[in-house]
Amino acid sequence: MKRAVVLLSGGLDSATVLAWMRREGYACHALSFRYGQRHGVELARAAELAAALGAAEHKVAEIDLRAFGGSALTADIAVPKDRDESSIAHGVPITYVPARNTIFLAFALAYAETLGSSDIAIGVNAIDYSGYPDCRPEFIASFERLANLATKAGAQDGAHFRIHTPLQTLSKAGIVRLALELGVPVGRTVSCYDPDPAGDPCGRCDACQLRRKGFAEAGAIDR
Amino acid sequence: MKRAVVLLSGGLDSATVLAWMRREGYACHALSFRYGQRHGVELARAAELAAALGAAEHKVAEIDLRAFGGSALTADIAVPKDRDESSIAHGVPITYVPARNTIFLAFALAYAETLGSSDIAIGVNAIDYSGYPDCRPEFIASFERLANLATKAGAQDGAHFRIHTPLQTLSKAGIVRLALELGVPVGRTVSCYDPDPAGDPCGRCDACQLRRKGFAEAGAIDR
Repeated sequence: MKRAVVLLSGGLDSATVLAWMRREGYACHALSFRYGQRHGVELARAAELAAALGAAEHKVAEIDLRAFGGSALTADIAVPKDRDESSIAHGVPITYVPARNTIFLAFALAYAETLGSSDIAIGVNAIDYSGYPDCRPEFIASFERLANLATKAGAQDGAHFRIHTPLQTLSKAGIVRLALELGVPVGRTVSCYDPDPAGDPCGRCDACQLRRKGFAEAGAIDR
Repeated sequence: MKRAVVLLSGGLDSATVLAWMRREGYACHALSFRYGQRHGVELARAAELAAALGAAEHKVAEIDLRAFGGSALTADIAVPKDRDESSIAHGVPITYVPARNTIFLAFALAYAETLGSSDIAIGVNAIDYSGYPDCRPEFIASFERLANLATKAGAQDGAHFRIHTPLQTLSKAGIVRLALELGVPVGRTVSCYDPDPAGDPCGRCDACQLRRKGFAEAGAIDR
């Protein structure tokens, strides 16, 4: 069975990617990061989702992005709440972590090369484009080219690595529909930027608002 | 003063890059990694060299590449000794660490973006090309394009980040000459893949052999 490395955060999007890659027939090696998140519930949910969705393996790599400062997700800046839809849709949010997806994909590449795998999957999607530069299709395409220059396997064959982004063109409602179709235990995924210690969402941050809208538009009930 | 992030390993090459960037007028933020190296002497020398060469700051980021296995520099595989010159010159060596420079540059990018810096320097050079895919000029050019797609600053101006590789076309002898010209305390740099606990080189690994040849060709004395 072909192996793939799947970046898994414990959120709805990456869990859906894992389920999608499983359906595509890959033996999935899930990879999460302990990167100074303020809440540990994400990693607990990632482990639970990896098991529930039949991952072959789940690794957690330790990295310390806090050393470089700068984001509400890793430092002591308040997560913005109750923003209106146009604020959410425009500009790079304060929750942007510098070069985060570059770092995550670089680790995924190291892991893939070690496994002899040529496939990496990540849950970037259209909703993120306006806010996070490292979720855009041109960023992903550029990383794929880099991967083929950066590695022994890529240097030998030139078009070895493929970065899978099955959610790339989907809205949040589209992701919700796909998640339900693939049997993702959506109630165990955590999207909130500021959940309580039990993992219950705040309901007011950008991620909670986007998720609520997505479920509503998909005509689905969340939990 | 313009700020730059300089990747610093404690070896001759990266120390020379730091000295070169200082001469170019940059305030240099040196970045090293604790990545499961078998020997800690590299990091002690990196700190010493950062201070000696006037770095504005020296950070050590913790990452664990051992989780992904696979290299003599991070796992329990013996470092090859006494190889002849043609074996050293051809093929990807066992000391290759999967995606290492991709990971290092990704962290440097996060650090640079946080500092408001657009300049990153790395000591890749011509000697490495045949062996390490992630030292080739086309890899560096690809990472520069990626950096400008991956970040807030790059997304705004398109050609924001520059990856400096002042050693790119130099032979080891050329690097030795440049190091001496720039006043690098070469006797405090450590190139060996398998030094003793005091930092003294084995004299027999590929890195020791290349260094010896470089000093000989440059007509210089090492220590």
